[in-house]
Amino acid sequence: MTAYTAVVTVRLKRGVLDPEAERTQEALERLGFELGDLRSADRFEVDLDADSAEAAADRADEMAERLLANPTIHDYTVEVEEQ
Amino acid sequence: MTAYTAVVTVRLKRGVLDPEAERTQEALERLGFELGDLRSADRFEVDLDADSAEAAADRADEMAERLLANPTIHDYTVEVEEQ
Repeated sequence: MTAYTAVVTVRLKRGVLDPEAERTQEALERLGFELGDLRSADRFEVDLDADSAEAAADRADEMAERLLANPTIHDYTVEVEEQ
Repeated sequence: MTAYTAVVTVRLKRGVLDPEAERTQEALERLGFELGDLRSADRFEVDLDADSAEAAADRADEMAERLLANPTIHDYTVEVEEQ
């Protein structure tokens, strides 16, 4: 077994409104920053033991499917690195 | 001017409690997943025009200092990529 960190990034699907990101962008613009767009995402870093990086990614993928992401509104990506 | 995307990742400093991450970890364990630790972070993807990648990173850094992160409890990192 090897120790891995799986990074699961959960984003709203294109077309789903994100009022929090809109307010953040407005607040930055009020501070004088010029920006084209701002998107926000949740990042989960999960430490786990697995036989291979592929097995760790599969497990993180299942965690995203079952709990971390809501498939109706979210897309997610999984990246695995050895600790 | 070139179009860049700056990714600002905002994490709680080590030692700052993160009840939401703890509840998420517990919920995953209740579903039968074994994991060593789970940390959560906020990820902001900011599209902006700048003269260089360095200038874009400086601007994103200032956004983090002034609004996106709370220096008392957060650390942050900035990565810039050309669009």
